[in-house]
Amino acid sequence: MPRRPPRLPPLLAEFDDDEREAVLAANRIFYRAFAARDIDAMDQLWAPTGALVCLHPGRAPLHARTEIMASWRAILGHPEAPRVRCIGEWVAGRPGLAIVVCREILPEGQLMATNTFARHAESWRMIGHHSGPVPPIEPEKVTASPATATRPDRRKLH
Amino acid sequence: MPRRPPRLPPLLAEFDDDEREAVLAANRIFYRAFAARDIDAMDQLWAPTGALVCLHPGRAPLHARTEIMASWRAILGHPEAPRVRCIGEWVAGRPGLAIVVCREILPEGQLMATNTFARHAESWRMIGHHSGPVPPIEPEKVTASPATATRPDRRKLH
Repeated sequence: MPRRPPRLPPLLAEFDDDEREAVLAANRIFYRAFAARDIDAMDQLWAPTGALVCLHPGRAPLHARTEIMASWRAILGHPEAPRVRCIGEWVAGRPGLAIVVCREILPEGQLMATNTFARHAESWRMIGHHSGPVPPIEPEKVTASPATATRPDRRKLH
Repeated sequence: MPRRPPRLPPLLAEFDDDEREAVLAANRIFYRAFAARDIDAMDQLWAPTGALVCLHPGRAPLHARTEIMASWRAILGHPEAPRVRCIGEWVAGRPGLAIVVCREILPEGQLMATNTFARHAESWRMIGHHSGPVPPIEPEKVTASPATATRPDRRKLH
């Protein structure tokens, strides 16, 4: 017996807790692909069609999918590719579009990224990445962003 | 006689050309407020409630509305506040949420910003700003971003 009713079409669905979790899962796929240097997973995550934008720190913006993927191949294929992880995810979403702002922890410093995701049929795909330097903090002090931390979980009664 | 039917509620409306123009208008309000050092217009543009994020170049992220407005008062009230203008707007939107990525031209350099807007009743309000340095280009060479330049206007038949 299914636990949930079938998902509504994207434009009619609410951006509910399930959608928020799906967006955060897509964001985790991005950082897992980055950390594992998995160009196939990165390619699969970026939307196959439509307008895209990728802004690596201090670099010129890329819009063409072929250029964006070439940039990721160069980054992930580099022997000194940074081992990045992500903390403190902050989410804003509406049906079909969401952004995740999060802190990227690298061995040599910290960045903040604004990652944009769009719903394509049954999955959230990346359509934008914008990363730039921020003053470092102690990662252990970050557990959740204000937006995530103060958001009540409507599925729970307490 | 009204030229258009009444606007549908945000969650049912399409992100159509009118909505795209409304988002671009909100983005222009941001840069006009910035250039004119108009803190009241800036305050009016940012969403009055809900989750916000503001990432000034190289600075720690701000989430509290009071802190975000204090940062803008400090920037706009500074005697050497940069005279910024914006070119090459790139838009991605769905009903209720949109991002504008654009190039910020300052006397001392160039930045790229990802600006996030959410629909609040009848207007688009800023909920996110993320700006960071990019290599400069000659502004005259930028007329429109690929997303804007290649998007067909569905209101026209040719």
